[in-house]
Amino acid sequence: MLKGLDPLLSPDLLHALAAMGHGDEIVVVDANFPAASTAQRLIRLDGASAPEALAAILSVLPLDSFVDDPLKTMQVVGDAKKTPEAVRDFAAVVRRTQGRKVALTPIERHAFYERARDAYAIVATGERRFYGNIIVTKGVIDAKGRIATPAEAAS
Amino acid sequence: MLKGLDPLLSPDLLHALAAMGHGDEIVVVDANFPAASTAQRLIRLDGASAPEALAAILSVLPLDSFVDDPLKTMQVVGDAKKTPEAVRDFAAVVRRTQGRKVALTPIERHAFYERARDAYAIVATGERRFYGNIIVTKGVIDAKGRIATPAEAAS
Repeated sequence: MLKGLDPLLSPDLLHALAAMGHGDEIVVVDANFPAASTAQRLIRLDGASAPEALAAILSVLPLDSFVDDPLKTMQVVGDAKKTPEAVRDFAAVVRRTQGRKVALTPIERHAFYERARDAYAIVATGERRFYGNIIVTKGVIDAKGRIATPAEAAS
Repeated sequence: MLKGLDPLLSPDLLHALAAMGHGDEIVVVDANFPAASTAQRLIRLDGASAPEALAAILSVLPLDSFVDDPLKTMQVVGDAKKTPEAVRDFAAVVRRTQGRKVALTPIERHAFYERARDAYAIVATGERRFYGNIIVTKGVIDAKGRIATPAEAAS
């Protein structure tokens, strides 16, 4: 246990989040996702739901403000317009933790797997609902501790 | 870089601090300390002074409130009453970061080495001043996020 940190931020998860740099990605996945076979670095969080894991991550990780899609979810197979319940919960976590509006961008299932394969780490949760998967892109923090946008970084 | 966390909290240092439990110890040492030969786990922080490293650690680590001496420094050889400059800086960090008064307890040089050998990790800083060494004992955080004392833990 550490002061001011979400207890779901395990030693291995904190290590990965701190080691990541700008543009690196971490993926939160549900219990059916092929996590062990896909991950470059696998972090287990079996006791947590996927939205709980996302909330813990976003409590310390700055989202990338240089891109329009720092959050990617998996499209429902055969019904690309549908928003699964787990994804609605992700959106609620994002609204609660971010000071600005950030959209979730659904991408096709196999494109999601490809992207997850290149990610720095995958967090395997105990989420039992289908489509409880999200890719998170890390942003930058400036010398004053603010999350920088491209315009700020150039000024 | 992570939101709200001291940039000196490197991936390896964060991992060690989060992995430690109640009563586990971490040692911040100066550039002359036999860190590599003594440490069970060695974390390098060559660019930082010892008080800077202590401040980063105490920004997240709860101090043990079950003991009277959660902070131990190294006695000056041949002048046990002397307070070295680095130790005065440690005391200033403790005053600044703790909500309560916590004393620094000087212990004899070889007793310090013995204790450091049993510690969970040693953080090797770039501190050039002699006696820039301190042993920190981890405390507990209760279910409401408060640093618990024995009386509170029993209630």
